[in-house]
Amino acid sequence: MSQQVAPVALRDIQRPVATPLERVVDELRRIIAADFPIIADVNEHLLRMKGKLFRPTLLLLSHQAAGGDDPPPRAVTLAAVVELIHLATLVHDDSVDHSALRRGMPTINALFSHQVAVIMGDYLYSRAIIELVGLEDLEPLRVFARVTNEMTVGEMRQLEAHDKLAYDEAQYDALIRAKTASLLSGACEVGALRAARGCRAALARFGMSLGMAFQITDDLLDYTQPQAVTGKPSGLDLKEHKVTLPLIAALERMAPADRRLVERLMAATDPPDDLVAEVIRAVEGAGGLEYARRRAQELAQQAEAELETLPPTPARDALRDSIAYAVERHS
Amino acid sequence: MSQQVAPVALRDIQRPVATPLERVVDELRRIIAADFPIIADVNEHLLRMKGKLFRPTLLLLSHQAAGGDDPPPRAVTLAAVVELIHLATLVHDDSVDHSALRRGMPTINALFSHQVAVIMGDYLYSRAIIELVGLEDLEPLRVFARVTNEMTVGEMRQLEAHDKLAYDEAQYDALIRAKTASLLSGACEVGALRAARGCRAALARFGMSLGMAFQITDDLLDYTQPQAVTGKPSGLDLKEHKVTLPLIAALERMAPADRRLVERLMAATDPPDDLVAEVIRAVEGAGGLEYARRRAQELAQQAEAELETLPPTPARDALRDSIAYAVERHS
Repeated sequence: MSQQVAPVALRDIQRPVATPLERVVDELRRIIAADFPIIADVNEHLLRMKGKLFRPTLLLLSHQAAGGDDPPPRAVTLAAVVELIHLATLVHDDSVDHSALRRGMPTINALFSHQVAVIMGDYLYSRAIIELVGLEDLEPLRVFARVTNEMTVGEMRQLEAHDKLAYDEAQYDALIRAKTASLLSGACEVGALRAARGCRAALARFGMSLGMAFQITDDLLDYTQPQAVTGKPSGLDLKEHKVTLPLIAALERMAPADRRLVERLMAATDPPDDLVAEVIRAVEGAGGLEYARRRAQELAQQAEAELETLPPTPARDALRDSIAYAVERHS
Repeated sequence: MSQQVAPVALRDIQRPVATPLERVVDELRRIIAADFPIIADVNEHLLRMKGKLFRPTLLLLSHQAAGGDDPPPRAVTLAAVVELIHLATLVHDDSVDHSALRRGMPTINALFSHQVAVIMGDYLYSRAIIELVGLEDLEPLRVFARVTNEMTVGEMRQLEAHDKLAYDEAQYDALIRAKTASLLSGACEVGALRAARGCRAALARFGMSLGMAFQITDDLLDYTQPQAVTGKPSGLDLKEHKVTLPLIAALERMAPADRRLVERLMAATDPPDDLVAEVIRAVEGAGGLEYARRRAQELAQQAEAELETLPPTPARDALRDSIAYAVERHS
């Protein structure tokens, strides 16, 4: 798989679950509905921002791939809840990071206020819990509560991954597991909750490897893609002094002069664009991008191996394609 | 009861549940434990800040008053969880309000950072959910998830209660129900979850009336108590343009000249202390403090009436004393 992958469109991956997926946004709208004006306004904005529904897609595909026989409303609700938890964390993350844009639209903290963002994140998350309690089943709650807690630890780790040239790959791995991969893993696991224990565990591990590959790819895009494609300025992580895998890998191999460039960047309150561009070139020159790409491919192969234990179905094929999507996407 | 109440010490109220209450802080420590350094540091600070455990006290007293036969570890865990949910909301509230002090100690946002406060609130809340899931019982989850969601709506209402001379008593009631009383009501209800339906409902209503009286008293203290007693500067709500019951009641009766004073205060970015003092005098002169005191007494009587349906026990007596404590305290 790692040798030659044709670009995969998310739409193709979503085909086996197109029907339930169509109902996820309506379900999400129902769950977060509020008659209090500010909350209703923020909800409208969030629903307009609607993402790619990657996590609901994974949940519904895992459900099918595991031979799930849930009545459809339940799987749709769980799929809406995983997107809702994702939304709640985005709203808080943007507030914590003071981000102004998300998916090319203003963030809640930018459009409303920092206060509204903090409260709305809490609102959305507590709505997710209420919905899960309404399903009268402790298992999805158990998974999602654990995952949400891991994500908060990931956010704390993220605060540490600033300005630190000593930040190493083990810390980075722990960070991306907690921050990103745990929720993708949780989505897959919750989709397969009623399957045999081995199948559930395999899909949870699949989601973890997939999620790590997904985040490494995200961190690579910050080095390689122009703003027009990602909706975020290129080199933004470096500008904000965020240390990610390309830099961690490059630092070990860098010439002292290039290393001093990185130190200068980390010392600058607002690093100029030409310094950011120089550091990007230095990271690429020292093999940092290549290293991160290989690591993403390695994780992609681990994810693929987990799928081998599942019976062949269109849903399993789509999960395999989601790996290619995660590591080959350009935005 | 409303005619002559001797000051009640919290310690006296806590006597019937002193033994389980002693274990609540250790249980809280266990639930929030983390090996990640920043989180462990924040936890230590939060545990040093330890409050009066009013919500765990109510939960344990309700449990006893309702004839609860839960094995003690379970009630202690629930009591720790209600304090944890309270802590999580305090951490976010302080961050939303940019408060620097809480219980005479620096807030998390002041001592660490705004980012750490947002993430820690999420950390604490998700730990509470994990702990509730571990009890293998959906009922406490159902109550606490609903309450937490109500509290976020209360926080949104709080944002609206700024600078608004048109803010009315119905809006204020909705605000204090959601922001404060819902959790006190939830604490009482969760304590009585295994009791007969009527008893559970009576204790939930008791907690709601008690909680509203508690918050009105809090808002009164802002007008009446010097900083040395409450740990917060006197008139802080007015300084921050927060509209509470004494002002709402007074505005209806105020002379035009005094009303213009209030308008001047609300228009000032940082109202001078003498203007704040003048407005406090105007509110008192127009009967705002007296009105709020009467309203708190009315709610106290409603709370007391709910207790009449319960069998006479030391726990019921302590709940009755908690009403006096809520409306007569000075800090």
